[in-house]
Amino acid sequence: MIRRFAFGSPLETGSVVHKPGLFDGELLYFKKDGNVLTFRMTEDDIVYGLGENVRGINKRGWRYVSNCTDEPHHNEGVVSLYGAHNFLLVDGYGHSPVGIFVDTPSQVFYDVGYTRSDILEIRAGCDDMEIYEIDGESPGAVVKEFREIIGQPYLPPKWAFGYGQSRWSYFSSDEVREVAAKLQENHIPVDSIYLDIDYMEGYRDFTINRERFPDFEELVSEMRRQGIHLVPIIDGGVKVEEGYEVCEEGVKNGYFCKDENGENFTVGVWPGLCYFPDMLNEDAARWFGRKYQFLLDKGIDGFWNDMNEPAIFYSGRRLARLFEKMAGAGRRTGADSPKESDGPVIAGGAEEPDDPVTADSSKEPDGPGTTDSPKEPDGLVTTDSPKEPESPVAADGLGKPAVLIGERDLRPSDIGAYYEIKTMVEQMEKNPEDYQSFYHNYRGRRVRHDRVHNLFGCYMTRAAQEAFEELSPERRILLFSRSSCIGMHRYGGIWMGDNSSWWSHLLMNLKMLPSLNMCGFLYTGADIGGFGCDATEDLLLRWLALGIFTPLMRNHSALGTRRQEPYAFEHTDAFAGMIGLRYRLLPYLYSEFMKAALRDEMYAAPLGFVWIRDEIARRVEDQLMIGGSIMIAPVCEQNAAGRVVYLPEEMKLVRFKGSALTEESPLPAGHHYIPVALDEVVFFIRRHHILPLCPGGGNTERMDWGGLTCLHFADAGDTYELYEDDGISREAALEGHIRILSPNLDKPE
Amino acid sequence: MIRRFAFGSPLETGSVVHKPGLFDGELLYFKKDGNVLTFRMTEDDIVYGLGENVRGINKRGWRYVSNCTDEPHHNEGVVSLYGAHNFLLVDGYGHSPVGIFVDTPSQVFYDVGYTRSDILEIRAGCDDMEIYEIDGESPGAVVKEFREIIGQPYLPPKWAFGYGQSRWSYFSSDEVREVAAKLQENHIPVDSIYLDIDYMEGYRDFTINRERFPDFEELVSEMRRQGIHLVPIIDGGVKVEEGYEVCEEGVKNGYFCKDENGENFTVGVWPGLCYFPDMLNEDAARWFGRKYQFLLDKGIDGFWNDMNEPAIFYSGRRLARLFEKMAGAGRRTGADSPKESDGPVIAGGAEEPDDPVTADSSKEPDGPGTTDSPKEPDGLVTTDSPKEPESPVAADGLGKPAVLIGERDLRPSDIGAYYEIKTMVEQMEKNPEDYQSFYHNYRGRRVRHDRVHNLFGCYMTRAAQEAFEELSPERRILLFSRSSCIGMHRYGGIWMGDNSSWWSHLLMNLKMLPSLNMCGFLYTGADIGGFGCDATEDLLLRWLALGIFTPLMRNHSALGTRRQEPYAFEHTDAFAGMIGLRYRLLPYLYSEFMKAALRDEMYAAPLGFVWIRDEIARRVEDQLMIGGSIMIAPVCEQNAAGRVVYLPEEMKLVRFKGSALTEESPLPAGHHYIPVALDEVVFFIRRHHILPLCPGGGNTERMDWGGLTCLHFADAGDTYELYEDDGISREAALEGHIRILSPNLDKPE
Repeated sequence: MIRRFAFGSPLETGSVVHKPGLFDGELLYFKKDGNVLTFRMTEDDIVYGLGENVRGINKRGWRYVSNCTDEPHHNEGVVSLYGAHNFLLVDGYGHSPVGIFVDTPSQVFYDVGYTRSDILEIRAGCDDMEIYEIDGESPGAVVKEFREIIGQPYLPPKWAFGYGQSRWSYFSSDEVREVAAKLQENHIPVDSIYLDIDYMEGYRDFTINRERFPDFEELVSEMRRQGIHLVPIIDGGVKVEEGYEVCEEGVKNGYFCKDENGENFTVGVWPGLCYFPDMLNEDAARWFGRKYQFLLDKGIDGFWNDMNEPAIFYSGRRLARLFEKMAGAGRRTGADSPKESDGPVIAGGAEEPDDPVTADSSKEPDGPGTTDSPKEPDGLVTTDSPKEPESPVAADGLGKPAVLIGERDLRPSDIGAYYEIKTMVEQMEKNPEDYQSFYHNYRGRRVRHDRVHNLFGCYMTRAAQEAFEELSPERRILLFSRSSCIGMHRYGGIWMGDNSSWWSHLLMNLKMLPSLNMCGFLYTGADIGGFGCDATEDLLLRWLALGIFTPLMRNHSALGTRRQEPYAFEHTDAFAGMIGLRYRLLPYLYSEFMKAALRDEMYAAPLGFVWIRDEIARRVEDQLMIGGSIMIAPVCEQNAAGRVVYLPEEMKLVRFKGSALTEESPLPAGHHYIPVALDEVVFFIRRHHILPLCPGGGNTERMDWGGLTCLHFADAGDTYELYEDDGISREAALEGHIRILSPNLDKPE
Repeated sequence: MIRRFAFGSPLETGSVVHKPGLFDGELLYFKKDGNVLTFRMTEDDIVYGLGENVRGINKRGWRYVSNCTDEPHHNEGVVSLYGAHNFLLVDGYGHSPVGIFVDTPSQVFYDVGYTRSDILEIRAGCDDMEIYEIDGESPGAVVKEFREIIGQPYLPPKWAFGYGQSRWSYFSSDEVREVAAKLQENHIPVDSIYLDIDYMEGYRDFTINRERFPDFEELVSEMRRQGIHLVPIIDGGVKVEEGYEVCEEGVKNGYFCKDENGENFTVGVWPGLCYFPDMLNEDAARWFGRKYQFLLDKGIDGFWNDMNEPAIFYSGRRLARLFEKMAGAGRRTGADSPKESDGPVIAGGAEEPDDPVTADSSKEPDGPGTTDSPKEPDGLVTTDSPKEPESPVAADGLGKPAVLIGERDLRPSDIGAYYEIKTMVEQMEKNPEDYQSFYHNYRGRRVRHDRVHNLFGCYMTRAAQEAFEELSPERRILLFSRSSCIGMHRYGGIWMGDNSSWWSHLLMNLKMLPSLNMCGFLYTGADIGGFGCDATEDLLLRWLALGIFTPLMRNHSALGTRRQEPYAFEHTDAFAGMIGLRYRLLPYLYSEFMKAALRDEMYAAPLGFVWIRDEIARRVEDQLMIGGSIMIAPVCEQNAAGRVVYLPEEMKLVRFKGSALTEESPLPAGHHYIPVALDEVVFFIRRHHILPLCPGGGNTERMDWGGLTCLHFADAGDTYELYEDDGISREAALEGHIRILSPNLDKPE
């Protein structure tokens, strides 16, 4: 049952599309005191949810902040990533499973047993919000209720389930052709190649760099003839430039976000100084969405929206302030002790458990006020004890007023000035003050950005998808975003942002999947192999063994990192085999995805959603159900030759070496050590379940979708519901038909 | 057998004290080509070693650099931490276990199957080195041979095995008293309280801040009367200041490191501008070591040496250069495109696998040349493709030469200038160029620092310990260091540096233990609960369940993080019980430590050292042998209620709730899921082995070391060798006696 509450004057976020009437009464499970909700947890309570975030499937033992943040440090210490997904689900023995959704477009702070191990506290950043409290018979039932009110997830075209190859960047038409050719030469199936920011002319949205891509349109159709879709990136900021049509139109029509004086607010992003389109302004959003036509007209049918938290490298005014400060330091004002920085001061907020997160929730890797880099010297750190504010540079010469260094002297005041400049530089990016300094026109109201911060990426993506519905009424367009909030799941998918080539991020990829599914995001996946840092072959192979089960399956890596295309390593055959297996599994994966999307179910579920009273299953953080038939248990540890898998019930192990089936072994319930070689994929079929397999092929267009065989652990009478559609038309996605498959018991594959 | 080789003109590092004669012949297992050693690995080869570093006990699949670095980001992407431990051990089926030690004081680069999965490559940074190739019958035998030539590890006093409480910082005598009182009130045993940098006067070595610690000497003896030792920190840099005795003496005697012109080289560390004592100059080292007398005279008998990589926040000359640049930017030189930074340029070196690590090995979290923070905009990133060097700021105004921002205009040149300044600020700390800009006087030779970089922390610690041998000839002094190289293990222990309150760092703590033991470092441990970031109660409890087995057992946390003393959380009893168990185990732990140190054996060993042909045991990365009798398997995952443990043979599970024994269960070999509550410690006794337990107590002085009982999984006839000594005198440590214990088979505890 869903109970809806409204407090203050909530701003309509668009997250919920099927609103029940307001509930006349109190919250049943949570206590509300002002803008704080609390829930007392018992030891057996598992807290699911929060979508895209760090730590476990079970979110207990940390704090989080819903505050869309350009955060490349996906480590245990962060509190916010790119999305704001305010849904939690508590499942324990003393109460019905209960979900809570806080519908507000500004920050929400979560303390999930961080301060006190038994207290779950949710603190909204403002008083205006709607709250939905949902209980049901099982965790899955609660999710289903929630998903029903937030609406059906975005349905991508079937080709978006193929393998995607990406890098920041493929720098020219020739390089794109080379990537396609090398994949094909090596028999590696591929459906899409991604274009990162360098396909644009100076990072200007809706332009093509004609020096690098002189034949862009021809490249698009040439690739399409090979069954490959090019997927360009679109950024959230528009370059400030005379003569750049997008900028001039936006200025002329007042479509950009304004500062407090009504001037267009300037920020620095990739292109240099930029304006932010006011994605919350319906006219501006419609205008921006229609801009995608520039690329649709060139044959493009897929996009990824980036930098739409929105990311800010600097604001124009903050940069100007830095230059004033530097000019002062350069002129030697002669101040002999450090002055207050005019940037925000970092507070050592962690000392006060009742205010767990400071205003700047877009925090540095190690928690607010934490020093994870060399301790700050001298009096410049905030202390939590009666530390003397010593003058750090009281006398730094030996009998001289200054120390002569090379050609010039270094004065006592310089060291203080250096730390001031350093602090200003470090606080230049994504500065909270900047997010409080510009305004939207939302339904005719002037709203300060920080009040609606978490909507920006969502509304950018919504603008694009709503344009696609007009511009491409027949065919589905691929669209996913970096930033998101609940509601955006109806308009596009998300990728999991700028992760690293770390084994811990492979595991984080797995953990985020079910958390996102609960929040409506089904079309998702991480940058396979890792975006930052350097990948190794073993990491990429193990990551693919998970990635072949994620709806978005894309290998992406950053400029300056080791090449990460499957042909860049030694055992190209292993990659061809593993990606080939993805294509063999597509009938099942697409079917399970579509059924989950259309039926408001989980595509990737924690074991605790299926075996809800199995104490071991409930705490498994490295295995998942993928659809109804299979359980996966990827190897997530470097140099491991296998792993221990927990089977909550008897299951059939199936082993593939590359795309070839090599073993089927029924196993009893319990823990099993399973050897898994680097070029193998092992997963488990549930009793009475069936897995359709097709022969696969080089991409979704050319492959053989027929000729299905069934792997199964079934008896006569057990069946599988296969969802099928044409994979591209919008209606078909909603009207796809179900075919009932029986196990071909007498014809094992 | 040990084969010693010398190439070029190796500088004597002091790492090896018992040198065999030079071997007349070739390397047997490795191929040497110039300064590159290679070894072809088969799939079953495990590569152990490298001491203090990230990733696994098995180092395969990554690259590493021996380059002592102040690196607080202990994530999978780094290549260097604080130590340089050039010992590797390859154990596989096709050859005898083989160890390799590269004895050189400058950088060494390791590619352990990173570039090619089957190639182990060791590249020395210079041509002058000694190499030791060691084979033996087992991994343990190779380690023993190696440890014999590098000499006996440092033996700390017995009180150094007690629980240590630390924080950056306890700011006053009163705060120290409060910490002691709260621990005692809560029945938490404690042997030491640590003083971080704020006990000093303005961070000056060998001074006391008399405002905060007016009664320092009285505090020391008051604590000693309670059985508590105060352990102050000593930093590697000496403040540049007229009237500061240490500085003036050093200047007068020429004891500081010099620049190329023979002037004292200035760097910035905690106190502001500093000089580095020339720890490699025997006279300077002796002088610096004798300075510790200042604190010994006050009753101090333990120290930790910090910042001795040596850490550099900035050099005087680099700071001066920044000010010149800022003055230029402030004056508006009018340059309209970014100029070359005069700082080092970051190279995207990862593209070239045969040069795996760039010159700057003190790298940022995500690998050389990797972008883990927002992609650098515009033409300022190094590209690995034919990227156009576009002018990022060609036109950033709309029909104006500049954009008006608040009170001033922002010119096109400013954005380029900002990125230049930003780069200079980011490259200010631990800049490789600075390490090439100062000189040592080593045995009469002028040696550039980078050629001997890895010796600095070692020689600082050696200087202190050699002074202690003179100043405290009777009694052992506690000493450990942040930076180290092999050889330093004879003079002090190390802690594992500035980790974070992350679950992954609890596991990293476990993995580093055996790697360090191989290199001679037995007295070691991590900052329990994590230094940076905010700890939670569950993390601290789980970490203690490992920490009670590490020789150095210290809870330490950074300024600005959540308080992390055991009484700062909810279940103080659980902490008291778990730390109490440490004291109950001390007869065993001290005995095993001393036997391992005196016999050149492992204190904490990988399972593969014991079950050398058990394919599963060899790849276990989260269990360890602690001494000969027991195996530990800590829970390293948040919210887990237990874990799967692998028993290579039948063992007896013993379970403690707090310090009370609650279960003894023999278990057969194989995998077992073992529930472990947060306040429990579970470990496993080997067949035919015995574990002496004492009643424990409030600290090592006051506790009851007698009244031993034996936990065991033994038969009549099985015995345990208990090492005992007085725990404090230097001779006793070498002459301690062995008592043979039999299981009290008829008297279970």
